[in-house]
Amino acid sequence: MDKTIGIFGGGQLGRMMAQAALPLNIQCIFFETNTACPSAALGPVFSPDKQELNAFIENADVFSLEFENTPLEQVDELIQSKNIHPSRQALAIAQNRLLEKNLFKQLEIPVAPFIAVNSRDDLHQAVESLGLPIVLKTATGGYDGKGQFVLRTVEDIAKAWADLGHAKPLIAESFVHFSREVSIIAVRGQNGDVKTWPLAENHHHQGILSHSIVPAPNSKTLQPTAEQYISTLLQHLNYVGVLTLELFVTDDGLYANEMAPRVHNSGHWSIEGAVCSQFENHIRAVAGLPLGSTEVIRPTVMVNIIGKHPNTADVLSLKGAHLHLYNKSEREGRKLGHITLMPIDDRELPALCHALAKILPEPLSLTTDMSW
Amino acid sequence: MDKTIGIFGGGQLGRMMAQAALPLNIQCIFFETNTACPSAALGPVFSPDKQELNAFIENADVFSLEFENTPLEQVDELIQSKNIHPSRQALAIAQNRLLEKNLFKQLEIPVAPFIAVNSRDDLHQAVESLGLPIVLKTATGGYDGKGQFVLRTVEDIAKAWADLGHAKPLIAESFVHFSREVSIIAVRGQNGDVKTWPLAENHHHQGILSHSIVPAPNSKTLQPTAEQYISTLLQHLNYVGVLTLELFVTDDGLYANEMAPRVHNSGHWSIEGAVCSQFENHIRAVAGLPLGSTEVIRPTVMVNIIGKHPNTADVLSLKGAHLHLYNKSEREGRKLGHITLMPIDDRELPALCHALAKILPEPLSLTTDMSW
Repeated sequence: MDKTIGIFGGGQLGRMMAQAALPLNIQCIFFETNTACPSAALGPVFSPDKQELNAFIENADVFSLEFENTPLEQVDELIQSKNIHPSRQALAIAQNRLLEKNLFKQLEIPVAPFIAVNSRDDLHQAVESLGLPIVLKTATGGYDGKGQFVLRTVEDIAKAWADLGHAKPLIAESFVHFSREVSIIAVRGQNGDVKTWPLAENHHHQGILSHSIVPAPNSKTLQPTAEQYISTLLQHLNYVGVLTLELFVTDDGLYANEMAPRVHNSGHWSIEGAVCSQFENHIRAVAGLPLGSTEVIRPTVMVNIIGKHPNTADVLSLKGAHLHLYNKSEREGRKLGHITLMPIDDRELPALCHALAKILPEPLSLTTDMSW
Repeated sequence: MDKTIGIFGGGQLGRMMAQAALPLNIQCIFFETNTACPSAALGPVFSPDKQELNAFIENADVFSLEFENTPLEQVDELIQSKNIHPSRQALAIAQNRLLEKNLFKQLEIPVAPFIAVNSRDDLHQAVESLGLPIVLKTATGGYDGKGQFVLRTVEDIAKAWADLGHAKPLIAESFVHFSREVSIIAVRGQNGDVKTWPLAENHHHQGILSHSIVPAPNSKTLQPTAEQYISTLLQHLNYVGVLTLELFVTDDGLYANEMAPRVHNSGHWSIEGAVCSQFENHIRAVAGLPLGSTEVIRPTVMVNIIGKHPNTADVLSLKGAHLHLYNKSEREGRKLGHITLMPIDDRELPALCHALAKILPEPLSLTTDMSW
């Protein structure tokens, strides 16, 4: 192998990064507690439980991550001698909603009004100045809807504080009235090149991404704005690798929700649907190689497999279906794999989606609008 | 993992099969002398040198191969308890040019006139009845032009016999006057379904495949005939998995050269260029899963990297270039990797090929005809 990339985390994102790295003669190794993780099929796993951080650092040439909550102390350890992409700074900002929202504001990327909350008094003042409803969130930690409290009445202040007060610093945010959620994914190379994939339209079920449609229907006028926002972030942070920006579509245009300093579930379609996938381009960027084209081959729908596995043969019988399993055991709410639908004729997509919905053990609420 | 496939051989074909198997939660294991082989990144390697055949057999559910000269005694061992796809019969025929050519004849697939040669007298008679020039080949063994002798004059008989007589049984074949070489690859599922990829036009340099153009230019009228030939073979052999048939294009139509009971170098383009690749469809067939579509996404040129590695960054700078390295060290005439060119606009292919030729350390003689 020509190069070794050390990846913090060993889940499905690491697995798919390593799959993309292999044909480039790039080996991935992983830092992950669960040594039987999805990435383990593709490279050695070093465990924090066995104090293997030093061995992990010694065995790789350069570092990246698939787990955005990678502890900064671990990163501090490695940057004494080696590089990590994205940088510690980008990671620190993405790990803290307050830093993140302040950065969006500073770069003139629209966000819902927000206020830092460090006491019950702050929360009262937030309700007063932002109005109700608001969402109270921990500034750090939390994902897939955890660590959040929605306040609808003044009585909720006490409950919200009882629930999350111990986890301060907190952030109170106004609700955004949006018609849909989209995300933009971009990659920046070490030479400053930026490439952007088209917007994905994302549909959630119980707080977890259910499926993404790419390109997002009727998004031609939104694309340039989203590209401008994410390019501004990439340049400002001198970012290297893949960055994801989640956005709300509102009557007033796009509002930023949050960024993820990594490859993203809403970009899994790109394995088949783009000339170069988010995984390969992230690896190329981290390894200092030229970026590949992010052009779309044809429209796709990516559907997550959550909680229970469908019958493999049923899925593979669908025309243009690509199955990606993560070698994980079944558990409620767990992402076990995904399916990308990419028929030669994209007019077949809605029918294919409905056929897939019948096969999946978990319900799939499909949108009907798939006009590009 | 849901299933384990044991593969005889551990080269780049096994590596790419295992890469295709992974997202289906199918693990591959390998039987291979070189335990640091290209496939080793994706699964355990069992060594014949360490008498690990039994362990290899115990650890897999079903078997396949990437090495067509897999010893039949090893196959005999496993078929006492488990299945191999393709079958022992198909493998035995593909390993013996005489059996193979006789089968082609029996199935009315045109072949150049040939005669079995077991003595110097036989060789004299072959020259008399076939005329000169002829090619004398060992019936078993030999690849990439090894184990062959071209006879142009009567004086060559003695030399040819001195060179190959010890390696009988031999086969003497008439020369075929062909304008180009093509190959057809097809897959048959356990349920009898057959799917065929389009013809590849293959260009060789010093007996080794240099590059393939897919679909083969101006091949629309040849495709149905080639499909009929390979389908006849698949059905006759009750074949499961991928089969390749190499063909000559002559003034009298297609002539069969040889078959390979496995995925083939001229099908590497299908990783990016087809809805489902030869590797994934082979794995699907061996695992008893439904086959994927073999439709072409867009025209491609696949170029082998032989002997020396090009600069990775130079290759990745080419628009629509996909690099596949096999993690092998440099050696003259050795296949180290391949590059698939698949720009969004296929009119750019000729220029891209010429740009690639400048980057490759070894010469690449490109054809100029790329009209589809």
